[in-house]
Amino acid sequence: MSTIIYPNNFSQEIPEGDDHTRAVCGDCGFIAYENPKIIAGSVVAYNDQILLCRRAIEPRKGFWTIPAGFMELGETPAEGAAREAWEEARAKIKVHDLLAIYTVKRISQVHMMYRASLDEPVFEPGPESLEVKLFSWDDIPWDELAFPSVHWALTHYKESMDQNTIAPHTNPEKWKDV
Amino acid sequence: MSTIIYPNNFSQEIPEGDDHTRAVCGDCGFIAYENPKIIAGSVVAYNDQILLCRRAIEPRKGFWTIPAGFMELGETPAEGAAREAWEEARAKIKVHDLLAIYTVKRISQVHMMYRASLDEPVFEPGPESLEVKLFSWDDIPWDELAFPSVHWALTHYKESMDQNTIAPHTNPEKWKDV
Repeated sequence: MSTIIYPNNFSQEIPEGDDHTRAVCGDCGFIAYENPKIIAGSVVAYNDQILLCRRAIEPRKGFWTIPAGFMELGETPAEGAAREAWEEARAKIKVHDLLAIYTVKRISQVHMMYRASLDEPVFEPGPESLEVKLFSWDDIPWDELAFPSVHWALTHYKESMDQNTIAPHTNPEKWKDV
Repeated sequence: MSTIIYPNNFSQEIPEGDDHTRAVCGDCGFIAYENPKIIAGSVVAYNDQILLCRRAIEPRKGFWTIPAGFMELGETPAEGAAREAWEEARAKIKVHDLLAIYTVKRISQVHMMYRASLDEPVFEPGPESLEVKLFSWDDIPWDELAFPSVHWALTHYKESMDQNTIAPHTNPEKWKDV
């Protein structure tokens, strides 16, 4: 279940008073608690178009994504989504409401996807992007999207466009247990 | 900003290609990425009453809380909320929709709080609780709640009781930057 490879002096054991297996250092007793990580991202609209980034890095280099990435310490999920839009697309976005929370249990990720917008069409590729572009709905490269959650977020965004209040979407039914 | 105390052979540095400071092992180069952690919890209703647990452990031992705790690897936030209700209150809850997402930036926590219910008033203290009890709204011990987010979740739950669809609440305005 662990997503981290620990040095050899760590062993997997259940600490006293705990009921989950943890990685524990055999030298100093340090317990490496490992918990799910949050991906913060957003579907960014400018008028009727959607901002996508073509990835310059693995995994899925060359494929298109919405701006999203690991949430960092000391920020809110919405601040994380705004930071990622800046890092990947040099876009200063306004983050609105929460569109969806997806879970990828296999890799213990929780994706928090927001609705966001651009006031002006000002953007350019950040260091992790090859290309950044606005797409009308008919032109979105559905077959060249980087991750399932990008597909889900774009679909849910379109479904909810006329809704002011959203109960956040979750994984599509057939992908509940991925 | 780090919430973990690392062994002495770790130093704080910015790895190549990164733009955040990380704890890096001086012996093997292992990078300890540290990201916010998710607290999964729920406001559990049985008819017009709310289930609270009196904490048997620090922090805030002796104070009342809703069932909530660190989300574990390999579960969804809703599954985490259900597991915590079992661990703390031996309650088999039905988890409904997402009531709120609170952020405690100072300690890099994201609290995902659900609306939940009990079909039967069956519960008892788990190992982390001194006492588990159903409270009517008028009897909730507001001055003996364990954490601000418990106060917020109960208040938001009550405000939203007649709403079928909730855009998840966030930190109250005066606590936005805690």
